[in-house]
Amino acid sequence: MFSLTIRDHMMIAHSFHGEIFGPAQRLHGATYVVDVTFKRPELDQDDLIVDIAQAGQVLSEVLGEFNMRNLDEIDAFRGRNTTTEFMASIIFKRLARAIGEGQLGETGRGLTAMSVTLHESHLAWASYEGAL
Amino acid sequence: MFSLTIRDHMMIAHSFHGEIFGPAQRLHGATYVVDVTFKRPELDQDDLIVDIAQAGQVLSEVLGEFNMRNLDEIDAFRGRNTTTEFMASIIFKRLARAIGEGQLGETGRGLTAMSVTLHESHLAWASYEGAL
Amino acid sequence: MFSLTIRDHMMIAHSFHGEIFGPAQRLHGATYVVDVTFKRPELDQDDLIVDIAQAGQVLSEVLGEFNMRNLDEIDAFRGRNTTTEFMASIIFKRLARAIGEGQLGETGRGLTAMSVTLHESHLAWASYEGAL
Amino acid sequence: MFSLTIRDHMMIAHSFHGEIFGPAQRLHGATYVVDVTFKRPELDQDDLIVDIAQAGQVLSEVLGEFNMRNLDEIDAFRGRNTTTEFMASIIFKRLARAIGEGQLGETGRGLTAMSVTLHESHLAWASYEGAL
Amino acid sequence: MFSLTIRDHMMIAHSFHGEIFGPAQRLHGATYVVDVTFKRPELDQDDLIVDIAQAGQVLSEVLGEFNMRNLDEIDAFRGRNTTTEFMASIIFKRLARAIGEGQLGETGRGLTAMSVTLHESHLAWASYEGAL
Amino acid sequence: MFSLTIRDHMMIAHSFHGEIFGPAQRLHGATYVVDVTFKRPELDQDDLIVDIAQAGQVLSEVLGEFNMRNLDEIDAFRGRNTTTEFMASIIFKRLARAIGEGQLGETGRGLTAMSVTLHESHLAWASYEGAL
Repeated sequence: MFSLTIRDHMMIAHSFHGEIFGPAQRLHGATYVVDVTFKRPELDQDDLIVDIAQAGQVLSEVLGEFNMRNLDEIDAFRGRNTTTEFMASIIFKRLARAIGEGQLGETGRGLTAMSVTLHESHLAWASYEGAL
Repeated sequence: MFSLTIRDHMMIAHSFHGEIFGPAQRLHGATYVVDVTFKRPELDQDDLIVDIAQAGQVLSEVLGEFNMRNLDEIDAFRGRNTTTEFMASIIFKRLARAIGEGQLGETGRGLTAMSVTLHESHLAWASYEGAL
Repeated sequence: MFSLTIRDHMMIAHSFHGEIFGPAQRLHGATYVVDVTFKRPELDQDDLIVDIAQAGQVLSEVLGEFNMRNLDEIDAFRGRNTTTEFMASIIFKRLARAIGEGQLGETGRGLTAMSVTLHESHLAWASYEGAL
Repeated sequence: MFSLTIRDHMMIAHSFHGEIFGPAQRLHGATYVVDVTFKRPELDQDDLIVDIAQAGQVLSEVLGEFNMRNLDEIDAFRGRNTTTEFMASIIFKRLARAIGEGQLGETGRGLTAMSVTLHESHLAWASYEGAL
Repeated sequence: MFSLTIRDHMMIAHSFHGEIFGPAQRLHGATYVVDVTFKRPELDQDDLIVDIAQAGQVLSEVLGEFNMRNLDEIDAFRGRNTTTEFMASIIFKRLARAIGEGQLGETGRGLTAMSVTLHESHLAWASYEGAL
Repeated sequence: MFSLTIRDHMMIAHSFHGEIFGPAQRLHGATYVVDVTFKRPELDQDDLIVDIAQAGQVLSEVLGEFNMRNLDEIDAFRGRNTTTEFMASIIFKRLARAIGEGQLGETGRGLTAMSVTLHESHLAWASYEGAL
């Protein structure tokens, strides 16, 4: 199995609901360094997993929906906690949809799995992975 | 599949038995930077994989058994080599037992797999992973 | 010259004022990974630059004033932009004051310089350094 | 499952064929930081996954075939693009053959899987993994 | 003293002249991860060291002169070895000229020193620093 | 000013004397990832700061005196605490002596300053720097 990972980041504000979160119930923020891994069993005719420039562009657009934003104000997240693990799954879904729509071209259609990791600090990170 | 990783470390002395270890047969030591990854297929009702503060506390207690110690003096390791890979499996077992005992609460019971990685230097690291 | 660096972090929300900041004028946030370097020309009688446990405790208290907070709501920062470089100087001043008050003990009084670095992402970081 | 990873690197020149590569069609180069992960279900009688010194030596020899070279001049790669993902699979095959020939000794024969990751920058890396 | 560092990279081919370089006399290549540190004694009226977006743009343009190139073909480097340390000084000079020309705006004129670091691998990096 | 840094590591056991060290008074150990920075105002005739292969060899020999050892058994350290900062100064002195003896060749004689950093974990590191 082949895999290619690209890195980008976003900087967001948010707050959490529930006693388990302690001081993180207050409005605070995070830099999420985002690693996306694209997987496929064989390379394409150019010896590529995916066009890295195109993948970077699509990832940047997906992150652009959240970057420099207060996630508490985004309707789609109402009633949820925008934890690192939850946001990893959101980025996964946005990217999976973009791939399904052909935004990574023909090569993108050869991808069979993906994982998204969000690093919230040097001490903690969370991932969501699934088939495409 | 969701996964959350937390990082901690421990500093230990030890020596190895067997010619294959060369100069590492002498008493020496290591800083092990420890990454523990908790996995579960769905988030809990708080949109969490596990309570990160609670997980960090349990990990710190498990590492506390070995941190600032000479592993050669620990009875449970008699006759074994406390290699990086062996210690990864030991940390895994201690954490799996703690989770089984409910030390990560109800959320901890939703975990289905775990991996433990010990970094011994910038050039080498070892892991043990298994189901819970 | 001897120097010792310790690492911690804080997670904050804030917004900036001025067109130069573009989308960062919106409420967003950051994880700041904080490195503090303590300097002195000679080691103390224990062969230390500073008691690392005590230094970590003082740093944690200084960061605790800002961690899990919206910096826009802190009176002392009114009229300023809480940029990474500005916050580096703030952490420096708080730590310098704590050292002056003797919170790092006798050894702390031997320190002659300090620098504080805040990493805002894998691509950018800012520092403030000065004499003590 | 146990796994052990070792790190090395190589520095190569190459060029790519195909419009999708844009400016990378010109002769350029890369530092590949190479991580090789060896996997086996149980440790050997020394509590090892593999002899790390021997593994490092074999990896160094495999990389030595390409290090400080222009990959465009290597016959075996004619008609292929020596992308990061392609080179990961090449390193995998060379190592798998060496293991099959017994170059990692008896312990090497207990390995059941391997992955090879090549980091081309702080923003992108690619892997090939497979059974042994 | 305040300092701000930004990170980018370039991928180049080159060869060296002189027996001291051993196998690096052959055509090979490198990824240079480039860190540029801008220094000034006081922040500007926006609480900035420099406009980070503008600095990133200028750095990208400077690296664009070399990225995806064979440095052996660049006339300005004839008779020199394009070592990591030499290229650090070249990037420094290009950036210093751009700052002198006002490409970092009024804020850029407040900078008093700069350093440029090129990482050639996880094991080696070189810098050039000087006044502006 | 030019500087070149190379990285290596050593793995040692030791214990400390004095109540301030708490549990570190027990025999334990550390991996020290060692960064050595060589400085000089101008490059030599090969556009080098120092021959990196030669420098790596000398550093490896210096670390070899301590690697895979219990520092408590080394006579030269009797009555001292082999803290990270102390060991940084020891490595500095050993390297400075080697440079003075000409072990880095003619180019080594052009060096004017050096710093040695020992990373004891992902959270702490210490340096010693001085003129040559």
